[in-house]
Amino acid sequence: MLYCIGLGLSDEKDITLKGLEIVRRAEKVYLEAYTSILMVSREKLEEFYGREVIIADRELVESDSDVILKDAISADVAFLVVGDPFGATTHLDLLLRARSLHIPIKTIHNASIMNAVGACGLQLYNFGQTVSMVFFTDTWKPSSFYDKIKENAKIGLHTLVLLDIKVKEQSEENLARGRKIYEPPRYMTVAQCASQMLTIEEVRQEGVYSKDSLAIGVARLGSDEQTFTVGTLEELAMADLGPPLHSLVLVGNVHDMEVDFIREFAIDRTKFDAAFPRNS
Amino acid sequence: MLYCIGLGLSDEKDITLKGLEIVRRAEKVYLEAYTSILMVSREKLEEFYGREVIIADRELVESDSDVILKDAISADVAFLVVGDPFGATTHLDLLLRARSLHIPIKTIHNASIMNAVGACGLQLYNFGQTVSMVFFTDTWKPSSFYDKIKENAKIGLHTLVLLDIKVKEQSEENLARGRKIYEPPRYMTVAQCASQMLTIEEVRQEGVYSKDSLAIGVARLGSDEQTFTVGTLEELAMADLGPPLHSLVLVGNVHDMEVDFIREFAIDRTKFDAAFPRNS
Repeated sequence: MLYCIGLGLSDEKDITLKGLEIVRRAEKVYLEAYTSILMVSREKLEEFYGREVIIADRELVESDSDVILKDAISADVAFLVVGDPFGATTHLDLLLRARSLHIPIKTIHNASIMNAVGACGLQLYNFGQTVSMVFFTDTWKPSSFYDKIKENAKIGLHTLVLLDIKVKEQSEENLARGRKIYEPPRYMTVAQCASQMLTIEEVRQEGVYSKDSLAIGVARLGSDEQTFTVGTLEELAMADLGPPLHSLVLVGNVHDMEVDFIREFAIDRTKFDAAFPRNS
Repeated sequence: MLYCIGLGLSDEKDITLKGLEIVRRAEKVYLEAYTSILMVSREKLEEFYGREVIIADRELVESDSDVILKDAISADVAFLVVGDPFGATTHLDLLLRARSLHIPIKTIHNASIMNAVGACGLQLYNFGQTVSMVFFTDTWKPSSFYDKIKENAKIGLHTLVLLDIKVKEQSEENLARGRKIYEPPRYMTVAQCASQMLTIEEVRQEGVYSKDSLAIGVARLGSDEQTFTVGTLEELAMADLGPPLHSLVLVGNVHDMEVDFIREFAIDRTKFDAAFPRNS
């Protein structure tokens, strides 16, 4: 059996009891460690689980998955995923491969950014499609996110923007020369995201949002150091929200109760109140 | 401190370790029991937690929340919510009231239908706004869901439809006479939902979907008895997916890998293959 087990958002105690029981008795335990990270080390996880945890990088999961699956044919293998196994990245290819090998699959769900972001106070009902923001380079500034935000904004919906993570990436030079030397991990900040959004609005000029559009910077969601920061994109582009992981929510239409709730997180309450004039 | 703790989707072992530790040491433990249900009884939870669990009905949470909050001023109160505390229902009013009483709030997240529905194989990225379906009566057939599905469908997005739950509801007569007699709980099925959707399409005639539109019936998500059933709305309107809880996903544009994944759940694979002709 292949168990896909969500670890939740923050530390070793965010696993469910059901998940932990499986980890403790599985033949092998893999940790998918390239689409998201926990805020604790592998060593901490190993100590807490009382088990060896094998790091599964992109190459192993996407090109070499039979290494993981061969044990699952005759024994229980736990494949750990930060957040929920069916959150932002679903590993459908791994599951389809397991199916083709007649390996039964079971999922142990957990919180992911896709639902826990509701903690900012905006109703999950009113989020449109989710978009991703990658690190821009001098020559590569993909803007497909802009079209999707446009579709959401047109009908008043919020947009969750998931921010790029670069783990175990090679520089172009090292990649070209086939040298397995990896760059230090990089995690996009809310400031970088807001700034890239404004760059694309300047290029596209379709008025999907502006420097005055309201957004929520989400940092370290689900941890004790979780923060929400409400400001304009211009304000957030200058804001330091501290250590990763970060996400951003571009705010659509809001109800009074949501306004009451998010006001507490405003960088500048006078500006916030001007954006949402109250009747009272 | 007020702890809002998600219980996940299915049984007593879906709570996180972090959540369980708080439940075991909290002064009082409330269970919000009117917007969703677990598949285990309160007694089972109490036995597992080793704690008394107080059922919090709608009246207590919405009109009488100070009863819950007064203990949280000086001690720890655990407020348990099926799924995630910021899932479909966010209890913002309770949290705003807590804030106004200067009670610190902490959330322990968990899986909710809003993210775990990804287990059907459709990417969460491509879901639009979520809609709710209530039980129609002879005189009340609200169709606001139709307009929202229309907006999602127009841009090719999937729609998650959350189905009505009637717990501790009074009949019109008992309500009018002020008799606190409650009807047995009712949980909408996928068949009822699909049928109500087709009723509204017949009335509105805007071609947002048809009896041939593909949808996924989701039953008992997160439990060992979880099932996914892929069929047309006409097929699903006739299908018996067994005990609650049910949800429905109206399918938008899909990628090849998603098609490969959901084909396994098709009621009629010939019909399914006709709907998604493959190149190979």
